[in-house]
Amino acid sequence: MRQSKLFTRTKREAPADEVAKNAQLLIRGGYIYKNMAGSYSFLPLGLRVIEKINRIIREEMNNIGGQELYMPSLQDPVLWKKTDRWSDENVDVWFKSQLQAGGDVGFGWTHEEVVTDIMRQYVSSYEDLPFSVYQIQTKFRNEVRAKSGIMRTREFWMKDMYTFAATEVQHDTMYETVAQAYGRIFNRIGIGEKTYKTFASGGAFSKFSHEYQTLAEAGEDVVYVCEAKGIAINEEVLEEADLSELGITREELVERKSIEVGNIFSLGTKFSEAIGLTFKDETGESHPVIMGSYGIGPARSMATVVDLLADKKGIVWPESIAPFMVHLVGLNLEDPEIRDWAEGIYNAFSDRGVEVLFDDREVRPGEKFADSDLLGIPYRVVVSRKGKEAGTFEVVTRKTGAVRNLTEQELFADLVGE
Amino acid sequence: MRQSKLFTRTKREAPADEVAKNAQLLIRGGYIYKNMAGSYSFLPLGLRVIEKINRIIREEMNNIGGQELYMPSLQDPVLWKKTDRWSDENVDVWFKSQLQAGGDVGFGWTHEEVVTDIMRQYVSSYEDLPFSVYQIQTKFRNEVRAKSGIMRTREFWMKDMYTFAATEVQHDTMYETVAQAYGRIFNRIGIGEKTYKTFASGGAFSKFSHEYQTLAEAGEDVVYVCEAKGIAINEEVLEEADLSELGITREELVERKSIEVGNIFSLGTKFSEAIGLTFKDETGESHPVIMGSYGIGPARSMATVVDLLADKKGIVWPESIAPFMVHLVGLNLEDPEIRDWAEGIYNAFSDRGVEVLFDDREVRPGEKFADSDLLGIPYRVVVSRKGKEAGTFEVVTRKTGAVRNLTEQELFADLVGE
Repeated sequence: MRQSKLFTRTKREAPADEVAKNAQLLIRGGYIYKNMAGSYSFLPLGLRVIEKINRIIREEMNNIGGQELYMPSLQDPVLWKKTDRWSDENVDVWFKSQLQAGGDVGFGWTHEEVVTDIMRQYVSSYEDLPFSVYQIQTKFRNEVRAKSGIMRTREFWMKDMYTFAATEVQHDTMYETVAQAYGRIFNRIGIGEKTYKTFASGGAFSKFSHEYQTLAEAGEDVVYVCEAKGIAINEEVLEEADLSELGITREELVERKSIEVGNIFSLGTKFSEAIGLTFKDETGESHPVIMGSYGIGPARSMATVVDLLADKKGIVWPESIAPFMVHLVGLNLEDPEIRDWAEGIYNAFSDRGVEVLFDDREVRPGEKFADSDLLGIPYRVVVSRKGKEAGTFEVVTRKTGAVRNLTEQELFADLVGE
Repeated sequence: MRQSKLFTRTKREAPADEVAKNAQLLIRGGYIYKNMAGSYSFLPLGLRVIEKINRIIREEMNNIGGQELYMPSLQDPVLWKKTDRWSDENVDVWFKSQLQAGGDVGFGWTHEEVVTDIMRQYVSSYEDLPFSVYQIQTKFRNEVRAKSGIMRTREFWMKDMYTFAATEVQHDTMYETVAQAYGRIFNRIGIGEKTYKTFASGGAFSKFSHEYQTLAEAGEDVVYVCEAKGIAINEEVLEEADLSELGITREELVERKSIEVGNIFSLGTKFSEAIGLTFKDETGESHPVIMGSYGIGPARSMATVVDLLADKKGIVWPESIAPFMVHLVGLNLEDPEIRDWAEGIYNAFSDRGVEVLFDDREVRPGEKFADSDLLGIPYRVVVSRKGKEAGTFEVVTRKTGAVRNLTEQELFADLVGE
């Protein structure tokens, strides 16, 4: 894509009311726009990042047999009264409204009730189980205080998977399978090293649930970590659980700030009993289905990557989720010979399927370089008169700052493995 | 995908309260689930269709230079008061709620105000124009009466494009470019022949706007068509416009029922003036930006395809948006030799990138064929003992009912062009 055609522009300053680093950098880069507190637009560059995160999530969910569906936001109170989660006393994040046709309606902040209700149509026998479904859907939560940029908003994408099992063994197997997929997801989006599968309390149906907590100074959460043993636990577990059971002592744990990027937990039969999702076993006896719930926030993951990896100059994207792989920065483009050379290399990248943002704007080199650092695309390839004379391109790796001068052949050998 | 793993099942009957043919068939096929009046879930098969429609739309929007973004549902009243579209007297489809942090909030039923506000950040000069953006986003409309299945729901996907121009010439050029892209979209999803670019009244800023109306008995709209001249006009234009200007007389026009699958219209400077989106021309003089708005409903398009092309046996998908290209129906699979043969051809399809649904369920042949007709996948390929003995597969084209017996080589020559 040509940067001269992109409608967004970089900004020197973020809005004064925006204190979170992720949102400051993303707004300055033209990735997002703040519409109101807790509500953001994703502009073309930002949407490209989200779509890459979503693609990774989908691949991992499909690989473990997850079937994608899409459930509505509008919620019928009847369903939520069955689980006692309609009243504002019990759930303090509802957005509610009224139908003109009569009656109340809510905007979904989670979808356990909905998915359980749907499955009543399709599950009747143990032979129908186990299976898992997932969706990537907007959730609405009426947070008293939206904060931390795109970490905690009132409207956000959520990938939620739900599993359905006839037996504890089936459930435990799926739970572990999803846990492993989550590990792969966080590795692939570039925060695997800092992300811990963290013991959290399990509720009524299992000893523990698990949060995926990424260690970061910008985090709102606190976890207790033993890096050597690769174990992390949250505050509740610290206070309540028998640590020896986890093979760890209090002294080994260090308190760290963290961001919850995902969570997985057993729902047991809470929802299936309340809503009436049952199956018949081999003997014809009826049982409630055993369920699990598994969440990841794509935009929160994006914010975490920005907070964790950015440097003083701007954002640093991992290749896997960068909006483009190459930032082709054209200097001296007023010279037709250089312009031709730049267009040639732009086409050569595009022909090879390399996603490239071509800075063909008529602005000063210093501004181009500053913008390039801010945008954080993994490889900057500079086309200039000086380079043309030497027959090379200056290639700067955003993450390390390493500078190399490569011929076209070397460039494609390096970036495309030709 | 193996049908035995798909969690959905076909149903003999649709819910008694569902009168629209599209929803009846889609519910029976397990494509969608009705959560409440005017609100549906898209199950795996249905989501595959929607995603294919969205992919076609995206390709056509990207091809004309549209930049994709994503705007939130939550709406700040401040913005909508500027255009006088916040009050329920002026707009009768708002869902509104209150922030716990204080203040009202609406749920977006369209996004002109939002996109205009965003562009104030990025447009200042004539050099920034023209350009176009689009999104595929959920809209909420508090319809008094939800009806016609997934045609008119209270929550629905909408692709909306917005164009921004400095001059009338720029605007008209983009308007015509989008019109042509819309023609290609409706052709590609299989309703092009029945879909007319229909003259509608243009509002304050242009003589006409255009609706894309698909002739269908299930339609809620009425249009006046001259098939010979390829002209259609809506009721307002019939009453108000000078038909001779359109090169048509009243006598040539036939009244037909139709479904509005898209619309395009000039917004002029209504929103840019109200919200303050201006640019400076070459002389430094300030002007409001000229805008256009262009909508398509992906789920409504899906419903239209179902209503228009279905036959007595069930849905008939065009290849372009079918959930799978091939329905591989396995008979006599209890015989290991037939099972092996079926698995081999299933893998051969998958290896060639052909999307195939493999009916490997242990149910009667008659049930498999009835389900296959209902689901409407373009090609049914039957694997059976009889076929194995002859060395052929029975291939049934869903649309025409044509039956052929093909060898494996002939099958791949026909379906994959090998």
